[in-house]
Amino acid sequence: MRLEILPVPGIGHVTEGDDLAVLIGTAAPWLRDGDVLVVTSKIVSKAEGRLVDVPADGPDRQAARDEILASETVRLVAARGTTRIVQTRHGFVMASAGIDASNVDKTRLVLLPEDPDASARALRAALRERYGVDVVVIISDTMGRPWRNGLTDVALGVAGMDAIRDHRGEVDPYGNELVLTQMAVVDELAAAGELIKGKCDQMPVAVIRGYLTTPLPGDGEGAKVLVRDASMDLFSLGTAEAKAAGFAAAASLPDQPGSTPPDPEAVRQAIASVADVVAPGTVFTPVTDDTERAALVATVPGWPAEATTLVLCSPPSPVEAVQLVRFGADVQRLRTALAARNIPSQLLPTPTAAALAL
Amino acid sequence: MRLEILPVPGIGHVTEGDDLAVLIGTAAPWLRDGDVLVVTSKIVSKAEGRLVDVPADGPDRQAARDEILASETVRLVAARGTTRIVQTRHGFVMASAGIDASNVDKTRLVLLPEDPDASARALRAALRERYGVDVVVIISDTMGRPWRNGLTDVALGVAGMDAIRDHRGEVDPYGNELVLTQMAVVDELAAAGELIKGKCDQMPVAVIRGYLTTPLPGDGEGAKVLVRDASMDLFSLGTAEAKAAGFAAAASLPDQPGSTPPDPEAVRQAIASVADVVAPGTVFTPVTDDTERAALVATVPGWPAEATTLVLCSPPSPVEAVQLVRFGADVQRLRTALAARNIPSQLLPTPTAAALAL
Repeated sequence: MRLEILPVPGIGHVTEGDDLAVLIGTAAPWLRDGDVLVVTSKIVSKAEGRLVDVPADGPDRQAARDEILASETVRLVAARGTTRIVQTRHGFVMASAGIDASNVDKTRLVLLPEDPDASARALRAALRERYGVDVVVIISDTMGRPWRNGLTDVALGVAGMDAIRDHRGEVDPYGNELVLTQMAVVDELAAAGELIKGKCDQMPVAVIRGYLTTPLPGDGEGAKVLVRDASMDLFSLGTAEAKAAGFAAAASLPDQPGSTPPDPEAVRQAIASVADVVAPGTVFTPVTDDTERAALVATVPGWPAEATTLVLCSPPSPVEAVQLVRFGADVQRLRTALAARNIPSQLLPTPTAAALAL
Repeated sequence: MRLEILPVPGIGHVTEGDDLAVLIGTAAPWLRDGDVLVVTSKIVSKAEGRLVDVPADGPDRQAARDEILASETVRLVAARGTTRIVQTRHGFVMASAGIDASNVDKTRLVLLPEDPDASARALRAALRERYGVDVVVIISDTMGRPWRNGLTDVALGVAGMDAIRDHRGEVDPYGNELVLTQMAVVDELAAAGELIKGKCDQMPVAVIRGYLTTPLPGDGEGAKVLVRDASMDLFSLGTAEAKAAGFAAAASLPDQPGSTPPDPEAVRQAIASVADVVAPGTVFTPVTDDTERAALVATVPGWPAEATTLVLCSPPSPVEAVQLVRFGADVQRLRTALAARNIPSQLLPTPTAAALAL
């Protein structure tokens, strides 16, 4: 067994309305059944007319670009400086929604194909119809990734093979069952194709030969199975954005006690974590109240016992009217909401006890 | 130009102390100058004795595994259920620090090589010395990634070529300068190698031929240049972990005004965001105080003017002593710290105004 990765030279510039099947079939009359075509998404976008006009430079260009980015974005995932990592309507998470200004006139931007799996299916069908060859088509694009420098090519769309090779349930020679090994082989094929495309100028198509003998009779489920739903993803938001979400949640923290007693160690940790920022002398003491509810008594030395506050951590009795302490808590809520927007603040002046003798 | 991806069959089981250069040189006497060897990290680890003994099953196995994971971890990045995404001492972010229980006896776990770049250099040097062949060596492993299902192989170590192919500064045929195109080609080579290794049973080495004609005279900087420093990474923490960090930061929010006046629109948004959770009737009004500092006055209808509180958002005067409002704020800080640990809470009972006439 061996694989070959072959370039497809001679495709030239692609413009709206071009028939990619003819361009590829003419440039690569040597295509065989089972070949895997890795096609750069940009030529698919160009052929499909996924281009928008923008000013060649100046502030108008940036404004037009921002507007296009917004229309291609369903969710902002992370931002820093001018970088925007967003989720596209296809579900892909990528910088600038994959909008590209390279290898195109200065007055145009290239958007991702509308439906890359459909583009792959259409190209596969056209190649079969016109040239009688049964190939796999992968539509590829270049993406960055967290934690590792440098970009790699991955698959946006595929027709003719499964996106994932599933080893789950297999047993290794030592008798261990393989539990996690689902390989994103179409991404690896896209990366392999880039090795030759990237070394040549203007080489938007590569062919990988030897990986498959027979493509799927149908087109398969496409590359959309590679999209992990945000609810399942441990990294659905950028760190700064998630931290701001934590601030925002803290600002709107509802008065809602839990239904089960909390872990005493976690309560101790929480008290310790604020020890340095609360007013000197303030003491939070874990107690069980007279109805056996887990609670914390907050006290300040020298204050009357009536001024202590009970923080309930497990099931409630009705909440009483709030006044001064609630006021202080509300001010802290506002300060947290300000901090979520990077606005530092402080309380000043604090009313004197005399002023507060309502 | 064409690339070939060739398997290296016949390496067999690797055990501690095995000489990988001899195993590979014997199995692939056809190696040529410029070939890129993609070597699965597991056989490197085994040859280098990076194995630890663990019980074959039961709770002791889990405990031993947890202890080993802790010793291989420099930073917890994200956790959900039993999944731990961690940063290793090499800087790689991966599940379980790359510790692997597959393709090894049930009583052993395989750790990552101590220094995969050094392993690659040593193997390259040994192949040159014994067989007179000048190859590139990539040590590869399988990793998951955010946002996309399925795993791919990437490079942990490399000797003989640069990890990244840098297109920055190049100009495309349309005159656009390429600004972001640094390709992680060793990751793409690792992925390409996996295509053939994964299709064959027990195939830990693949050769990619045709990508290079001449390796670097030296070994290059290694795969460590692929490690992005956490401070530069928009996804340095899991979403849940970053959100908890936001809660924790809210709990310990210092009394520290900013040095520049805040954006009035952001202040309005902050006020609006807490409108539903503050005590009914409380009003936060943006003002400029008598020293021209941006500020907010917090008032409750019916309270005396002295009971209003000023939240300063830009440069300070000395902070006065805090009493009741500060007390309320401190209680809210504690509740935020509890919430950061998933402990809901409420204030109860609130002292009456009479009790607070100190």
